[in-house]
Amino acid sequence: MHKTRVRVVEDALDANNTIAQANRDDFDRAGVTVVNLMSAPGAGKTTLLERVLSDLDGVRAGVLEGDVQGSLDADRLAAVHVPVVQLNTGAGFGGECHLDANMVRSAIPALPLGDIDLLVVENVGNLVCPAEFRIGENARVMISSVTEGEDKPLKYPLMFRACELVLINKIDLLEHLDFDLEKFLYHLDAVHPGVPHMLMSARTGEGVEAFRDWLVQAA
Amino acid sequence: MHKTRVRVVEDALDANNTIAQANRDDFDRAGVTVVNLMSAPGAGKTTLLERVLSDLDGVRAGVLEGDVQGSLDADRLAAVHVPVVQLNTGAGFGGECHLDANMVRSAIPALPLGDIDLLVVENVGNLVCPAEFRIGENARVMISSVTEGEDKPLKYPLMFRACELVLINKIDLLEHLDFDLEKFLYHLDAVHPGVPHMLMSARTGEGVEAFRDWLVQAA
Repeated sequence: MHKTRVRVVEDALDANNTIAQANRDDFDRAGVTVVNLMSAPGAGKTTLLERVLSDLDGVRAGVLEGDVQGSLDADRLAAVHVPVVQLNTGAGFGGECHLDANMVRSAIPALPLGDIDLLVVENVGNLVCPAEFRIGENARVMISSVTEGEDKPLKYPLMFRACELVLINKIDLLEHLDFDLEKFLYHLDAVHPGVPHMLMSARTGEGVEAFRDWLVQAA
Repeated sequence: MHKTRVRVVEDALDANNTIAQANRDDFDRAGVTVVNLMSAPGAGKTTLLERVLSDLDGVRAGVLEGDVQGSLDADRLAAVHVPVVQLNTGAGFGGECHLDANMVRSAIPALPLGDIDLLVVENVGNLVCPAEFRIGENARVMISSVTEGEDKPLKYPLMFRACELVLINKIDLLEHLDFDLEKFLYHLDAVHPGVPHMLMSARTGEGVEAFRDWLVQAA
């Protein structure tokens, strides 16, 4: 039975990859770079996007906002004058805990691809399944908050391995935590040797310029 | 296509409920009360269990530790002399982001049901899917950390509705955050009117006695 389950999962991922490639072709034709932004719930994805997307040296950014339900984050980002499209996994997609290529494909007609250079897809807050589903992105970025503990790379290695960049957020709280940054970086290097990382506080703005520059370069 | 997907999800949940009932019957026969403990990654489940399980007024506790992979938390809990059984969703279960009734069923032969009164099942860190799968528990408890933000009940309402008790953790950090506790409680009441909650810091120990007493009463 376990073998059957694993095979079903593998078949589903193969199908997903086919659709992801179709998405990628559409994005490429439109000249839009796509970044898939992932993290646990409450790690600071939206706060970071509020900080960096409104001023990207002329790069025109848009957001595809993934949530199980509601539009709280989309409303926050619309307030900083970024075009935002909401994608709810609870609306016809069974309340899935992640975005997949098919869901993103369903949103493409609503995206203003002709008016943007960069699309950030804010995935559902979850450290497991979002890492398994490509959506047609050019790069995957994850945020790990220091409040989550230094063991997270070891517990969710697929997520940390799937990313081209790891953002270590909420460093303004470091002095109030037992979090051991050296140990976190050691664990990170163990599961994804050499992956670039950036230290930042999306709340205070400390260190976010490096990510803003990275986005400008990527676009 | 969406309708098909939703029906598949519903059928899977029906099958899960049947197995959950079989688990519950086994636990009842053994006289063991089962608590399903859920939260986002890094909210403090293991730290809280380290605090409360070693001294429960004579109630004999055990833990079923759910993780995608590894045994970091099980090792921590074994160090406080609590019997722990590790259940990895990555070992034969396709790396699932939650425990389900069938996974728990597979672990029952390894559980020392004759030697314990209370079994705490530490679920995979995730605010979405764990809420959908009953495992044969008597009660569901979730931890929401104040570092995750006050919007979480609105974004993950199924999780907050599924629980009989909500633990609000990391209150030692409140003075360093913008977290609005009144707003969080307002959102919590909106999605699950009247659900009991407890304020605590598993790190400092503040407020954990109330949960310890709750576990003793539940057992």
